[in-house]
This record gives sequence, structure tokens and C-alpha cells, in this order.
Amino acid sequence: MKHLEEKTISSRQVFKGRFLKIEQDQVQAPNGKIYHREYILHPGAAMMIPLLPNGNVVMVHQYRHAVKQVMLEFPAGKRDRGEDSLVTAKRELSEETGYIANDWKFLTAIHPVIGYSNEQIDLYLAKDLSKTQQQLDEGEFLEVIEIAPQELMSLIQQGKVTDVKTQIGAFWLDKILRGEWN
Amino acid sequence: MKHLEEKTISSRQVFKGRFLKIEQDQVQAPNGKIYHREYILHPGAAMMIPLLPNGNVVMVHQYRHAVKQVMLEFPAGKRDRGEDSLVTAKRELSEETGYIANDWKFLTAIHPVIGYSNEQIDLYLAKDLSKTQQQLDEGEFLEVIEIAPQELMSLIQQGKVTDVKTQIGAFWLDKILRGEWN
Repeated sequence: MKHLEEKTISSRQVFKGRFLKIEQDQVQAPNGKIYHREYILHPGAAMMIPLLPNGNVVMVHQYRHAVKQVMLEFPAGKRDRGEDSLVTAKRELSEETGYIANDWKFLTAIHPVIGYSNEQIDLYLAKDLSKTQQQLDEGEFLEVIEIAPQELMSLIQQGKVTDVKTQIGAFWLDKILRGEWN
Repeated sequence: MKHLEEKTISSRQVFKGRFLKIEQDQVQAPNGKIYHREYILHPGAAMMIPLLPNGNVVMVHQYRHAVKQVMLEFPAGKRDRGEDSLVTAKRELSEETGYIANDWKFLTAIHPVIGYSNEQIDLYLAKDLSKTQQQLDEGEFLEVIEIAPQELMSLIQQGKVTDVKTQIGAFWLDKILRGEWN
């Protein structure tokens, strides 16, 4: 695939907001010409599928201002600088839902925005859950719900779960519960 | 879900780069406090799963500078201002792969970046394909390949297809080909 790659010529940060940072790079394309590429600098994130002993999953309802909707999502959060994504996942599960899991399995890594962000989200399956206390960040408002995986798949089919990390988590869980993937 | 919603107090564009635009809003949260939210303004996009009569799908290999990798993707592109996403899908399929499809079906809409972009991607299934001429945009370099859906699912399981829109398209196609979803 080397012949499709672009070579970075220069790189500078062109925006630093309250939350978002933008990098603008000059690249040399396979045709030898110079182009500009812009993208968000993101620390990466972790998401987990918390699977309860009764077969249900733990999810959150959260208002997302960028899309101006309340979304149904698996719990997730941004990595602190240099933090292993499993540490992020454990912290976010506990803070957002009040659950702790004793059995963690890495499933896969996904790139949600290859056109304009370097964000990577690591997906985990979290089992052997026990309940503690929810501790939300300042300015974070969400509601914890329990749902059967089959009901979640049905909501996806109906177009009611549009968050990509959540849809992908549900499809992976579907494969695992069918015994097709382990 | 009204009790989770935030009310927009003010809105202004804080960055306009060569490609990216950032909006910064002040919102009033459910606790009455004012917070800032920042997000990319995006025109929306369309992606299609081009299914050939031989059962294979048409995909593209493309270098994505934001993640500095060559990615395996379904063809996709940004909507022009006010454009219906089906028009975008037809144009992008033809430009990127040189195929035209006579049978189009809307599958679902997804939100790839609910934390910091208003982007929505509409997903289509494109059948009854015939070959014409690829016409890439200036600065766009990609390679068209054909792959069996089962092989694509195997690559996803191995963590080799990390682009979210592509993974979701493959999972939807899997459900359709099994006759579970129509």
C-alpha cells in the first residue's frame, strides 16, 4: 500500500479551543504535489459493553449537543494523557454507571473519523459486574438503563441507535452471543 | 428525555480552516449552569455498499492522513450544500469506483462523532451495477478492489477494518445476506 501513502512535509497547530485542537499538515501526495490536510488531535477513547449476569447490557442516555439529541450509548470516555485504554474503560464504567467489572476483554479498536480526526476508540467487553456509586464529571448528565441485547439490535435495525461506537459494540456482542466470534 | 437536554444560549463560529469549521456554543444544562460546547460543522455524507452480481462488494483502499494509514473502506463522500444524500451516493460511487448502480436502497443514518461533530452519514445498498469510468477529485488517490462479504467480516474480526462506517455497512450487509434484516 506504500504507493498510496502521503509524506508529511510540515505540521502545525492552527486552532486550540476550549476542548478541540486542530493540526494542519502539508503532505506530498503520490503524484508529487503538495496538499493541505486538517484534522482534530484527539487523545483516544475507550468504550465498554457491560454485560450483566441476567443477560442485559448497561447503557446510558446522554444529550449530545453536537447532534442536538439524547443518544443511547454504551459508556465511554476520553483517555487521560498516556493512559492505557483499559484504565480509562474501568474508570468510565464506574463513574458513568456505578458498576465495577472483574472480567475485562479487549475486543477491537475503531477509527470513527478517518477524514478529520486521529481518534481511536478501544472496545472492551466487561463482565462479572458489581454495583457501586455513580460519580459524574462536572457538566455531565446521563441516565443509566438496562436493555436486552436483542432489543438493542432491534433498535439499531429501526434506526434508533445511530452512535457508531455503540452500534459496532452491539454487532460485536451479537456475534459473540451467537458463538460465531469469541 | 427532555430532562437531559441542554438549551442553546449562544452560538458562534470560532475557527474556519481550509476544510474544517468549528462552532462554539454556550448551553444551559439541566442543572441551570452554563457550559461551553465545541463541535465541527459538517455538511453530512453518504456511503454505499456496492454489491456485484457475483456476490462480491466493491471497496476502496485509501490513505487517510488523520490516522496515517491506508484504510479499506466502502466508497463515500461529503454532501454538497443542500444535496440529497442519494445524489451524493450516486456521484461518489461513479467518481471513486467507476460503477453505476440501478438499484438503490436506503439502509440507515449514523452519527460517527457525537462528541464533537454534527456529521451524519446516510448508508445505502447499491445493486444492479454496471462499469463506467473512475473520475477522482484533485488530490484524491485510491484503489478499487472486490472482496467477498465473508472475507470482509473475517477482516473485521481480525481488527483489520477499523473505519466505523465501513464496519457498520459490513454488519448491515451480513444481516441482510442472512435474511435476518431486509
